[in-house]
Amino acid sequence: MESKHGSFKTIHLRTEKHIDFYDITSEIESQVSDSGVRDGILLVFTPHTTAGITINENADPSVRSDIREFISRNIPHQSYFKHLEGNSPSHIMSSLFSVSETIIIQDGQLVLGTWQGIFFCEFDGPRNRKVYVKIIGD
Amino acid sequence: MESKHGSFKTIHLRTEKHIDFYDITSEIESQVSDSGVRDGILLVFTPHTTAGITINENADPSVRSDIREFISRNIPHQSYFKHLEGNSPSHIMSSLFSVSETIIIQDGQLVLGTWQGIFFCEFDGPRNRKVYVKIIGD
Amino acid sequence: MESKHGSFKTIHLRTEKHIDFYDITSEIESQVSDSGVRDGILLVFTPHTTAGITINENADPSVRSDIREFISRNIPHQSYFKHLEGNSPSHIMSSLFSVSETIIIQDGQLVLGTWQGIFFCEFDGPRNRKVYVKIIGD
Repeated sequence: MESKHGSFKTIHLRTEKHIDFYDITSEIESQVSDSGVRDGILLVFTPHTTAGITINENADPSVRSDIREFISRNIPHQSYFKHLEGNSPSHIMSSLFSVSETIIIQDGQLVLGTWQGIFFCEFDGPRNRKVYVKIIGD
Repeated sequence: MESKHGSFKTIHLRTEKHIDFYDITSEIESQVSDSGVRDGILLVFTPHTTAGITINENADPSVRSDIREFISRNIPHQSYFKHLEGNSPSHIMSSLFSVSETIIIQDGQLVLGTWQGIFFCEFDGPRNRKVYVKIIGD
Repeated sequence: MESKHGSFKTIHLRTEKHIDFYDITSEIESQVSDSGVRDGILLVFTPHTTAGITINENADPSVRSDIREFISRNIPHQSYFKHLEGNSPSHIMSSLFSVSETIIIQDGQLVLGTWQGIFFCEFDGPRNRKVYVKIIGD
């Protein structure tokens, strides 16, 4: 069997809000199909320090708005912060959500639950953002 | 050397409490032995949006009960939540803990610290739950 | 092409503070060069239950000090904690930050953003600590 590892793509996004979640599942599923990989893993990674990647419910959008509201209220600016850019809350959110997710590829399909979508997390928008997607497998 | 990548298994759990942590380390170690993989990585992934996977202390159970108590008190239901199912705290915990962990396989062994165990995190139980475990390597 | 998967190294650290972040990016980049792997992924994993790995800004050190201050104030000791070692906050931080990060290797380079560094997170120092770095690819 010919090795197919090495598929690497970049997704470009323009975010519109300060904090928001963008569903990138379908772009990623297309890349899995295009790669021809049947058996492996996929890494979604964003190269920004005030953004993240998360997997959560893709059905009711109020789940994302509740998460957004909760983190906005619970990770606010603090008078003791010293970072002059003023966006330390965005950096904290990035470390707590983390900048990547790893997903199984089995029988040529991304293995996600029925209600799971993959989301780019904007924590300091609006901005132009990138997400890297790497597939390794056969 | 024959390629061994591709080991994929499903662990089924019945959780008993609303929030709790279940040690799944030994099932995963058995899968590593059975796979014959000596050199690679292992991905533990749960396909639910109100659950997670974490690695933490496997010795004193009070560590897990302290974590449970802390997140229950600090990520409670909020009057401003809009998700009608009422389980937005469970979704927030899922994004903060994340739904997966990746672990090294070296010399045919899962590389964990002395006190580390792999735990399924129930954030909205009791429920029937699944965990997928994928091994890639040789 | 000769398979290069299997590079595995241990980084040893002596931490100085109770909570702090240590930049380990350059040690990890050296390992990528030494491995000869051009196309793959890299897993950074710490085998401790009161530590973590995160990716965040490597330019202004006040970002890390703001994160440290925020988690120290918001994840303090609680009178209801039962773990006798008294370091439950450190275990909670470990689960929230997680003990690993996975990064893409493309064209022989670690794929990080301009401002991203890889940090060992000490949540219960000072201590002697270890970080494992595993590369898989070709």
